[in-house]
Amino acid sequence: MTFNIPDTDQPRIVIVGAGFGGLSLARKLAKTNYQVILIDKNNYHQFQPLFYQVAMAGLEPSSIAFPLRKVFQKKKNVFIRVTKVTEIDAENNEIKTPLGRLHFDHLVISIGARTNFFGNENLERKCISMKSVSEALYLRNRILSDYEKAISTTDYDKRQGLIDIAIVGGGPTGVEVAGALAEMKKYIIPKEYKELDFKEIDIYLIQSSSCLLKGMSSEASEGAKIFLENLGVKVILDKRVMDFDGEFVHLADGSKIQAQKVIWAAGIIGNTLKGLPDETLTYGNRLKVDRFNQVEGFSNIFALGDIAYMEEEDYPKGHPQVAQVAIQQAKQLAENLKNKLKGKEFEQFYYKDLGSMATIGRNRAVVDLPRFKFKGFFAWIVWLIVHLFSLIGVKNKIFVFLNWVWNYFTYDQSLRLIIKPKIRKEAENDSRLKSNNI
Amino acid sequence: MTFNIPDTDQPRIVIVGAGFGGLSLARKLAKTNYQVILIDKNNYHQFQPLFYQVAMAGLEPSSIAFPLRKVFQKKKNVFIRVTKVTEIDAENNEIKTPLGRLHFDHLVISIGARTNFFGNENLERKCISMKSVSEALYLRNRILSDYEKAISTTDYDKRQGLIDIAIVGGGPTGVEVAGALAEMKKYIIPKEYKELDFKEIDIYLIQSSSCLLKGMSSEASEGAKIFLENLGVKVILDKRVMDFDGEFVHLADGSKIQAQKVIWAAGIIGNTLKGLPDETLTYGNRLKVDRFNQVEGFSNIFALGDIAYMEEEDYPKGHPQVAQVAIQQAKQLAENLKNKLKGKEFEQFYYKDLGSMATIGRNRAVVDLPRFKFKGFFAWIVWLIVHLFSLIGVKNKIFVFLNWVWNYFTYDQSLRLIIKPKIRKEAENDSRLKSNNI
Repeated sequence: MTFNIPDTDQPRIVIVGAGFGGLSLARKLAKTNYQVILIDKNNYHQFQPLFYQVAMAGLEPSSIAFPLRKVFQKKKNVFIRVTKVTEIDAENNEIKTPLGRLHFDHLVISIGARTNFFGNENLERKCISMKSVSEALYLRNRILSDYEKAISTTDYDKRQGLIDIAIVGGGPTGVEVAGALAEMKKYIIPKEYKELDFKEIDIYLIQSSSCLLKGMSSEASEGAKIFLENLGVKVILDKRVMDFDGEFVHLADGSKIQAQKVIWAAGIIGNTLKGLPDETLTYGNRLKVDRFNQVEGFSNIFALGDIAYMEEEDYPKGHPQVAQVAIQQAKQLAENLKNKLKGKEFEQFYYKDLGSMATIGRNRAVVDLPRFKFKGFFAWIVWLIVHLFSLIGVKNKIFVFLNWVWNYFTYDQSLRLIIKPKIRKEAENDSRLKSNNI
Repeated sequence: MTFNIPDTDQPRIVIVGAGFGGLSLARKLAKTNYQVILIDKNNYHQFQPLFYQVAMAGLEPSSIAFPLRKVFQKKKNVFIRVTKVTEIDAENNEIKTPLGRLHFDHLVISIGARTNFFGNENLERKCISMKSVSEALYLRNRILSDYEKAISTTDYDKRQGLIDIAIVGGGPTGVEVAGALAEMKKYIIPKEYKELDFKEIDIYLIQSSSCLLKGMSSEASEGAKIFLENLGVKVILDKRVMDFDGEFVHLADGSKIQAQKVIWAAGIIGNTLKGLPDETLTYGNRLKVDRFNQVEGFSNIFALGDIAYMEEEDYPKGHPQVAQVAIQQAKQLAENLKNKLKGKEFEQFYYKDLGSMATIGRNRAVVDLPRFKFKGFFAWIVWLIVHLFSLIGVKNKIFVFLNWVWNYFTYDQSLRLIIKPKIRKEAENDSRLKSNNI
């Protein structure tokens, strides 16, 4: 196995990770005089803000994941490699991967963040996280399988364990999942699981601090809470989850909640990549960068997005770990790298906050713009439009739009399939992939 | 765990298997004075004729699989149970399942057929079959992963093993898969895998007898062969596959073909269900039934579709194992069962051959109708329309239609995602499901 990439006289930029930051950067550097190598462990970019709709059977994975090779079909200077970077050899300007070593002139680290279980192995092993399409599909299968089992379970307590769901973390993901689950309870269960009493289903949203959507306005926090409670979600504030034994969630005050499914959306921590000095790491496992996104101590190694920690006048504790920061940093870095070819200086990055939003079921959302704050139906329409136009590709936009329109008028989706992977073969395949080092 | 089904004074019909036969029957018995229990190991009906398009990344599973609960949303006398029937206790009119025993007044066995490897364990272990959505997705992932690996493989022979594909069996499935693969080679590879030389990709279609599409007209057989060869498929007739070692396919004449992926579409054999006397089994593991679909020796146990073997004047060796037979038998059986409630006699089943068809890539198909035979573009349009209207649900029809139109004009699909299932968790989940006996 080898990288099999042509040696040209173009300087080579290696981008590790095809999230919002890495993908945006590669797109902006297409058709420039750089050779761009985009590396990801998946062959697709994932649109994280809509994972929860995949989990709730509202959208198909293909609507919110976009094959990288398709994005760069006509971009001759961009090369895709589906592999894992195991280490950086900063001294020799090389990365190490199962495909071998690869030299870089510039390296961009955009490896994002993973779920943070704060070191609690029990939680890590037993909770469900939602940081990938695969995890979203897993959650979908779990929810639907458990409803099937609940139908055949006559014992009340056992049935409660199967149908109740706890969500930990009151950020946008937690709020959106809770809203979507509440809608499923209201519109789908009574029609399709007529043997179940939908009133028995409890949905808990647990947040350790005193408000939902921390970081948004108090109007948004309050609005989200009211919307969720109107939908029947049990919002629990100021309580910290200490443990989960597979049957009960244990809170810090000693109380417990029965649920076999716990969705963990309570925090993220930077992914790890070996080979950089320890001093480059800071809060939340992020890499310290200057205002040009250069990793501390390096002039040709950059970090972007969730994994990067940059202090700015208005953001003395670093930027929020959201898509907009990654996209804007990618834009500035692309400009800087293009200017470098012309002998120009780098320019500093400034974050422009475009606002934030969250949706709570049908017809309801909360939106904080820099100048306006609003909620309700109009906010929901704004949420739909913004997310629709953020999707890559005309086809994805059309299909997601049609799905949403369809679901809106029918109060129903038709994606409730429990598709079990071929485990034996997939496992075989996986070990085969591993032995072949991809 | 228990079946948890209300005892009413309606006679109970238990249908095992929600393929074309079982699903059609349950739909026709909805809103009658029977209590209908439809049992399947999946929570969805699968539209087998389009599995190959899922495998070729042309359609999403959700477009060709339909959740059973959705079909029967408003049908109060139909109950869905996702479980596996392990045995029939014919003496006591009961079935055994992990949910416990269930009494039936009438039992309908529509469990279909599985891939037939003719007892060769090597083939069974190493070939890829396409009898379920999961298998189709597995094939999709294998093909795409192997292209990724081929890019990083400089050794010519090793690369050949990764990119070449052999298809065994020249029936409709084999012909359609070969055509779709040839199209992918022609339109997708040059654009997206520019580091691969698409001319290196070989697609073999191997058939043990002297013509493709056995059972169709000689015009169709010949037409399919010419269409495939024009697309660059290597059609190998009159050669039997004896073995596959993971690297080479071994033919009966001692020759061998290099390919790591072998798609097995060379035959089917009836699924097995314990508890019926051995005498009821006949050729291909099928159950002997009379002209009322009654299993030999029983008046209240029926078999439908692929699993049933019925001799008719025009079909002295039984009917072909195709969807039309299952659907027509279900219709007659539903009539008979409804008439029974009115005290009327059963009527005999007669199969009406509506014709058969197969498509070979874009713009080309072969169609045999009882009175006409034709091929080419018009045949392809007919194929599209027939398959579109056979899908269940308005939404599926619309989305599949839009997908086809999109793919037709762009020469492209965007579903080429290698989504790896969460193996550890899924395996956990699976054992959990097993221990809970679903």
